[in-house]
Amino acid sequence: MLAPRPAALAYRHPLRVYWEDTDAGGVVFYANYLKFFERARTEWLRSLGVSQHALQREQGVIFVVAEATLRLLRPARLDDALEATVAVADAARASLRLQQQVWRGGELLAEGMVRIACVQAAGGSGADLEPCRIPAAILEKIQ
Amino acid sequence: MLAPRPAALAYRHPLRVYWEDTDAGGVVFYANYLKFFERARTEWLRSLGVSQHALQREQGVIFVVAEATLRLLRPARLDDALEATVAVADAARASLRLQQQVWRGGELLAEGMVRIACVQAAGGSGADLEPCRIPAAILEKIQ
Amino acid sequence: MLAPRPAALAYRHPLRVYWEDTDAGGVVFYANYLKFFERARTEWLRSLGVSQHALQREQGVIFVVAEATLRLLRPARLDDALEATVAVADAARASLRLQQQVWRGGELLAEGMVRIACVQAAGGSGADLEPCRIPAAILEKIQ
Amino acid sequence: MLAPRPAALAYRHPLRVYWEDTDAGGVVFYANYLKFFERARTEWLRSLGVSQHALQREQGVIFVVAEATLRLLRPARLDDALEATVAVADAARASLRLQQQVWRGGELLAEGMVRIACVQAAGGSGADLEPCRIPAAILEKIQ
Repeated sequence: MLAPRPAALAYRHPLRVYWEDTDAGGVVFYANYLKFFERARTEWLRSLGVSQHALQREQGVIFVVAEATLRLLRPARLDDALEATVAVADAARASLRLQQQVWRGGELLAEGMVRIACVQAAGGSGADLEPCRIPAAILEKIQ
Repeated sequence: MLAPRPAALAYRHPLRVYWEDTDAGGVVFYANYLKFFERARTEWLRSLGVSQHALQREQGVIFVVAEATLRLLRPARLDDALEATVAVADAARASLRLQQQVWRGGELLAEGMVRIACVQAAGGSGADLEPCRIPAAILEKIQ
Repeated sequence: MLAPRPAALAYRHPLRVYWEDTDAGGVVFYANYLKFFERARTEWLRSLGVSQHALQREQGVIFVVAEATLRLLRPARLDDALEATVAVADAARASLRLQQQVWRGGELLAEGMVRIACVQAAGGSGADLEPCRIPAAILEKIQ
Repeated sequence: MLAPRPAALAYRHPLRVYWEDTDAGGVVFYANYLKFFERARTEWLRSLGVSQHALQREQGVIFVVAEATLRLLRPARLDDALEATVAVADAARASLRLQQQVWRGGELLAEGMVRIACVQAAGGSGADLEPCRIPAAILEKIQ
């Protein structure tokens, strides 16, 4: 469905499957692939020098997920050593489309497309979130 | 993207947003909508007289998610009373496509399409999973 | 260890075990009992007219867990219908000790003691949390 | 409450706080410390050459948590780099008591005692779990 990018072009985040990730089917619970995707996105941003916590605290800006797709090809299991990857598919002014995959060695286990949008939290967790431009300093690093 | 079904035609499962569902952005963490979808699917199957635990134990059959899409329209927050819905979009011999939504009263917060496939676990959690036909008794109830 | 309270004296919250709650051992993952405890505490507070979201938004006050114990007696499994209970063991000015249990019908599956403390968030998620008195209106309802 | 062991004597597992770990209070959700404890136990067992997945698949043996205590001293937040530690407090024939802590640099954030017991799953996830002796090869490595 998605043309798999050469591994070399994607950011790669290693992770391990723990009990918390599995379900009574003996495999990783499907929603947890979105957790793996998120960890990879966060580490990718960190690798670019972007701290989401600092971003939230200092500028009130959060990246939120607007859309996600997930295709599960082979199950991951307890103790598996995996890699979650991120590659930029599209960068617009207020949102990014990211291709994300989960690999076990050379086997592609799961893949998806995640669109994250930049929003501004107008004070506190109860407040409304307004779309905003991705800070220029971040957009430069991504492109 | 998805044509919203009239509420009357979908199975509706009420749920509440707890601390465990939220994140430091003050809203429900995106992966948790897939949990809400799964709860609704399970309760919908139960409403049709299908126990997934009995199915797994007696016939070694599990429904697994093969594909999922998720579109987040408005954030859900702590204490929100929500409804997660399920409607059959397509029923094939070995898989179902389900339209799923999350509502807060009359507001649509999230929606997606989930394809679940029937697989046979050939003994124990370490074993391989083989695609199989949806048991006829279940398929009849769904259609 | 804990003297089991007569069921009649505790607040009871019904819940269901879903795939998300289980692990590859085929049973509910141990950390998830603390989620069940939390849901019961939240519903118990709600039954007393206390909305934690409103409390946080309007007074900047949050109940946080300071201590928890957990004893697992029998495993819960997929599809189980459970009840999580709350009973006040002790109420002090800034914290409460709550006895919590998880039942499947007449079987006690898990139990613990949770001490929750009242804290004031001095603005935003990055801020320091200061212990504070439990609002008088809440303490009255509890006692 | 627990006498803090010198860091040098405990197994140390590094981890990062992601969005999935936090809640709307802006801090790590309390149940997730038990996830951090579990990851550290699994990595500690792995460091001793014990694969829990192989143990389950080959001998039908699982370590399950029988008791856990948790004391939360300071909140962990998004992006924090933490270390979860494990030290054996007691080793009996069928169970181990482990002292576990979560540190952020030199700050102790959370600590607890976890008793894990060895059980035998008599075939499949629906089966009963019987207490059993810790395999001798594992007990030797631990002591």
